[in-house]
Amino acid sequence: MDVRTLRVGVLGAGRIGKIHTQILSRLGVTIVSIADPGLGRAKALAEEFNIPNSTTDPLDILKDSSIHAVLICSPTDHHAQQIHLAAQYKKHIFCEKPIALDLAVVDAAVKAVEEAGVKMMVGFNRRFDANFKRIRRAIEEGDVGDISMIRITSRDPSPPPVSYIKSSGGMFCDMTIHDFDMARFLVGSEVEQVFVTAQARDPEIRAAGDVDVAVVTLQFANGVIGYIENSRVAAYGYDQRVEVLGSKGAVSCENNYPNTVTFSTGKHISRDLPLHFFIDRYMDAYRDELEAFIRVCLNPSTQPPVSGQDGRQALKLGLAATRSSKENRPVKLHEFDSNGHSSIPK
Amino acid sequence: MDVRTLRVGVLGAGRIGKIHTQILSRLGVTIVSIADPGLGRAKALAEEFNIPNSTTDPLDILKDSSIHAVLICSPTDHHAQQIHLAAQYKKHIFCEKPIALDLAVVDAAVKAVEEAGVKMMVGFNRRFDANFKRIRRAIEEGDVGDISMIRITSRDPSPPPVSYIKSSGGMFCDMTIHDFDMARFLVGSEVEQVFVTAQARDPEIRAAGDVDVAVVTLQFANGVIGYIENSRVAAYGYDQRVEVLGSKGAVSCENNYPNTVTFSTGKHISRDLPLHFFIDRYMDAYRDELEAFIRVCLNPSTQPPVSGQDGRQALKLGLAATRSSKENRPVKLHEFDSNGHSSIPK
Amino acid sequence: MDVRTLRVGVLGAGRIGKIHTQILSRLGVTIVSIADPGLGRAKALAEEFNIPNSTTDPLDILKDSSIHAVLICSPTDHHAQQIHLAAQYKKHIFCEKPIALDLAVVDAAVKAVEEAGVKMMVGFNRRFDANFKRIRRAIEEGDVGDISMIRITSRDPSPPPVSYIKSSGGMFCDMTIHDFDMARFLVGSEVEQVFVTAQARDPEIRAAGDVDVAVVTLQFANGVIGYIENSRVAAYGYDQRVEVLGSKGAVSCENNYPNTVTFSTGKHISRDLPLHFFIDRYMDAYRDELEAFIRVCLNPSTQPPVSGQDGRQALKLGLAATRSSKENRPVKLHEFDSNGHSSIPK
Amino acid sequence: MDVRTLRVGVLGAGRIGKIHTQILSRLGVTIVSIADPGLGRAKALAEEFNIPNSTTDPLDILKDSSIHAVLICSPTDHHAQQIHLAAQYKKHIFCEKPIALDLAVVDAAVKAVEEAGVKMMVGFNRRFDANFKRIRRAIEEGDVGDISMIRITSRDPSPPPVSYIKSSGGMFCDMTIHDFDMARFLVGSEVEQVFVTAQARDPEIRAAGDVDVAVVTLQFANGVIGYIENSRVAAYGYDQRVEVLGSKGAVSCENNYPNTVTFSTGKHISRDLPLHFFIDRYMDAYRDELEAFIRVCLNPSTQPPVSGQDGRQALKLGLAATRSSKENRPVKLHEFDSNGHSSIPK
Repeated sequence: MDVRTLRVGVLGAGRIGKIHTQILSRLGVTIVSIADPGLGRAKALAEEFNIPNSTTDPLDILKDSSIHAVLICSPTDHHAQQIHLAAQYKKHIFCEKPIALDLAVVDAAVKAVEEAGVKMMVGFNRRFDANFKRIRRAIEEGDVGDISMIRITSRDPSPPPVSYIKSSGGMFCDMTIHDFDMARFLVGSEVEQVFVTAQARDPEIRAAGDVDVAVVTLQFANGVIGYIENSRVAAYGYDQRVEVLGSKGAVSCENNYPNTVTFSTGKHISRDLPLHFFIDRYMDAYRDELEAFIRVCLNPSTQPPVSGQDGRQALKLGLAATRSSKENRPVKLHEFDSNGHSSIPK
Repeated sequence: MDVRTLRVGVLGAGRIGKIHTQILSRLGVTIVSIADPGLGRAKALAEEFNIPNSTTDPLDILKDSSIHAVLICSPTDHHAQQIHLAAQYKKHIFCEKPIALDLAVVDAAVKAVEEAGVKMMVGFNRRFDANFKRIRRAIEEGDVGDISMIRITSRDPSPPPVSYIKSSGGMFCDMTIHDFDMARFLVGSEVEQVFVTAQARDPEIRAAGDVDVAVVTLQFANGVIGYIENSRVAAYGYDQRVEVLGSKGAVSCENNYPNTVTFSTGKHISRDLPLHFFIDRYMDAYRDELEAFIRVCLNPSTQPPVSGQDGRQALKLGLAATRSSKENRPVKLHEFDSNGHSSIPK
Repeated sequence: MDVRTLRVGVLGAGRIGKIHTQILSRLGVTIVSIADPGLGRAKALAEEFNIPNSTTDPLDILKDSSIHAVLICSPTDHHAQQIHLAAQYKKHIFCEKPIALDLAVVDAAVKAVEEAGVKMMVGFNRRFDANFKRIRRAIEEGDVGDISMIRITSRDPSPPPVSYIKSSGGMFCDMTIHDFDMARFLVGSEVEQVFVTAQARDPEIRAAGDVDVAVVTLQFANGVIGYIENSRVAAYGYDQRVEVLGSKGAVSCENNYPNTVTFSTGKHISRDLPLHFFIDRYMDAYRDELEAFIRVCLNPSTQPPVSGQDGRQALKLGLAATRSSKENRPVKLHEFDSNGHSSIPK
Repeated sequence: MDVRTLRVGVLGAGRIGKIHTQILSRLGVTIVSIADPGLGRAKALAEEFNIPNSTTDPLDILKDSSIHAVLICSPTDHHAQQIHLAAQYKKHIFCEKPIALDLAVVDAAVKAVEEAGVKMMVGFNRRFDANFKRIRRAIEEGDVGDISMIRITSRDPSPPPVSYIKSSGGMFCDMTIHDFDMARFLVGSEVEQVFVTAQARDPEIRAAGDVDVAVVTLQFANGVIGYIENSRVAAYGYDQRVEVLGSKGAVSCENNYPNTVTFSTGKHISRDLPLHFFIDRYMDAYRDELEAFIRVCLNPSTQPPVSGQDGRQALKLGLAATRSSKENRPVKLHEFDSNGHSSIPK
């Protein structure tokens, strides 16, 4: 199984598209073409990595029968349509999260993929992080016994532009969604109830109807209690930690640092700040994620480690948290089983 | 101001009575007598610390006009009555928490103290812990800017006997009450709403109607979000940590350990477990707490650093958390302002 | 065995005399009298701890037949004479280190103690430190297998006055002597050879003929290699660490801190400085040391955990290190077996 | 400056040759050919990384006028000859350490390189490690003031085969040589005197005339005292740390770990072992090292960050340490300035 035989196309040459292209290139995959509405962007990226083609039209890639798989790195509101097209043209799909912001749209996309018989993997890259994988392994191997509580700390160094927040679905659907996936990944059970205590400290974010600080409490079907602590801003940088308590003890992880150096001066004992943001912190995870996708594409008998259903469940939690925050009450997940309220209220 | 001039009596020769007696003795205070229904217990303690008298009747101490102050270390259901008597006989009062399990009873006791013009300090010893004091100082000095979130981790090594739980008011009133006080101490604002996600993992505790694992979310009047993670059991021992996030950064503390030794073997890098339980962990805090009480007794112009009102507020939070846990809804604290439901439902 | 039955006298009311008096008082020992050439100093200390007598003449204590034991806390050049007198008057002896700066003088003092049949314990307090005791236990229990190397880091926050250095015997005899004892305590073997690489960075210390930075390499009889890193100055405070390597792994300890608090700001992750100097760092060790001495005094069948021979060996290492530093060559310890050069060269 | 324009050949397809080939390939350099006496080895490596040629004869590469630079990854006893040839054929040279085990041979090789006007960089990869670079920057920027001491801890997980030791020049020339270079890199001064306390704990190593545990003390020209603690075996894995003391404080680094996870059980608090050996620990350093070499090859005006002289000085320290260990005396480096004893005694 030679990775060079896998021929892929990349849809979207923005920040995440660049990261994935660089990684695929180093892994030895054959990247056939890059599509982006901004042709200059696509061309520049193609040139940097010796990729023969670039285009403004994703269909050039989707219709190319020599291509086995596509990476959907376009803006969220293009994801679902590109999934439908990729399924139609029988490409395996790697799609950045979230699939969409409306459960019905997600369901239709997942269904199309299933019917086409192609594989789809959703970009919850943190599942491939060395720390979180180690914690999951500890849970699976019973090192902490029956788990009772899990805490996920997830704080960004600084908030995205308010313009982004307005289209992202809000903090619970663009940021916490990663933590929801992590909670499901680690606990191995589904959430039944969500309760949010939140606040908007930034006036612009408040004006946009979103929040920037929140504690999200999760009640899992297997009895585990989860809680996520989110903040759009942390002066010391990116903060990504997990702690799990079980009957035999606890397991937790700390942030990653650029070095292990300690300074001892007349004022204090100190070290440099943790790796600043997700690109630095999760670069190895992005690589391992794409390696997993490549393996899945090359082995017909394997299934993606992160499925469309995983994408759907995380979105549902994002919608439930949004509702809990707005209505100050615990929200049961089965409220979303009936139709009608399957997306962010406008 | 010579501490030897302060003459005190101790009511209760149980575990906490012994700790306080030992500390008072080392601090040089003149302990006149110890009262306990078990005369043998009182006598043994008196002998160990060269205390001239012991008795089964607290009134022997309360009526002794040579005594300036009493330490109420009896079981909770005796606290209120002993406070009334001590106020009547003009003794300064150090009362272990909680004052009582009924807000009306607490209010009456606090009122009696105020009318008698004596001082009363409540035993929230953790306020005197070096770690938590340092965090409070950091907050007060603005080191973390405007604070937005505070997390309190509080886990016991193993649960108390179910018989104790039945009389203690339950986890929120006997254990979390310390964390409620810590939250108020650090945030410097009152809580407006409590929401609890909890579970009873131990069948006996469940049968007794209590819980043993909980996440308590607090909405403070000043906008801060607090959350307490409690467990009646932690295999690795006593776990007492705090983390505060503010606009300028974060401040947190770790557990205390019996030594700083690291073992590096062929299997792992390890260290010994943290100090096992509250007596080891908080011995210095107990000492500093009593030093503060002694200062207050000897200086007419000073007020206790932990007041009867502090005791009342922590209890109210315990009652609100109990209600939230039973009714699965956010509970506003003002629900307890009207009369009628001021105690644990039987 | 009631500690109150032990009657002791304290010789010397300086810094270390005060520490020991406070500890003895809290432990409940009966302190009969304090002697110091400065009567005011002796009186003040006696009054603070309710001690009935104070005197300028040590003989008042030594001749008092009701006294069982003395603590020699006087300047070093009085130690030997007071040991001889205490032995003559049949008192048990706790003597601060070093016994003397001349091996012949030490030998005579040790011999006098043995002939008198009293017990003598030397004040190597660090043997009672929780970290170092834990490391010793790990070695004894074979946790690190056969040990091959041991490193002792020992740095003071700031140098003593040059006047002190001139009478102290120099860095190796006043400061490193503690580390020599620690090395012997942990390794459980005698040193055969010493080599020093040293320097005087402070011009005044250089002018006084001493050094202030040194690495001392020790060759033990059992093959273990030891090395001590000393500095008279460390901007971040008192630095006292040990690391041991053995066939099964390593064991090491870190400094002790006033709290466990971590600060995360936009600049760095930091914590407060370690406990600043020996009084803070070793207060518990001083207490445990005196508890051990008390036990020895009260139990005829026990021997002191730190003997006069221990004091002698540490001094010999100090003298050997001094010689190695001056002559830039490895110095064999048996060079000190013959008479003639048994003290610091003037 | 496009890295793809740089055409290189690799001499040696052993362990280090593979590492460098993989890195060069990912960096985008054009690798023209790989030479190894074992043709199968060369072919396999060429195929894995899409390299067009492989050969058993280094001259095929050295004579190829289209090649700009060679990486000498052959056994040590081939280095000098290959350097001479590469210089003759005007290739830039990256040579693994050590250049040779005889100072005269090293001098001749360095001279040939200089006369040919090509560039030579020696493979002291640790200079590119994030921790050690950070410490050097702290020193350069004066964060610790005037430095007085530096400690280098360097322990391997397990010893190499005795057959290797017999040809490697012994521990000081094959292992400590990295630490000598690190000491010079960090201190920025030359060593004047070396003293070694060492031992052979492994009987086979002892029989081979080498040692496996050592403390090496260095006296630098600028007054700094250095000490290196080496062990051929450490049960917990690869141990690579540095600590520097200066007038303003200290700076130190810890080992690197595969994750940041902490386990808290009923037995202890633990974490996984550090990265096991040099390939894992220094992979990023190897990459940054080769990036530096590529930059030097592509920019005529730049000089290699690690020169032939650096290789020479480290070897001289290895020879001095070997002599000190054998003769149990401090060895001055100027002993090696006169001819005659410029290599390991046979």
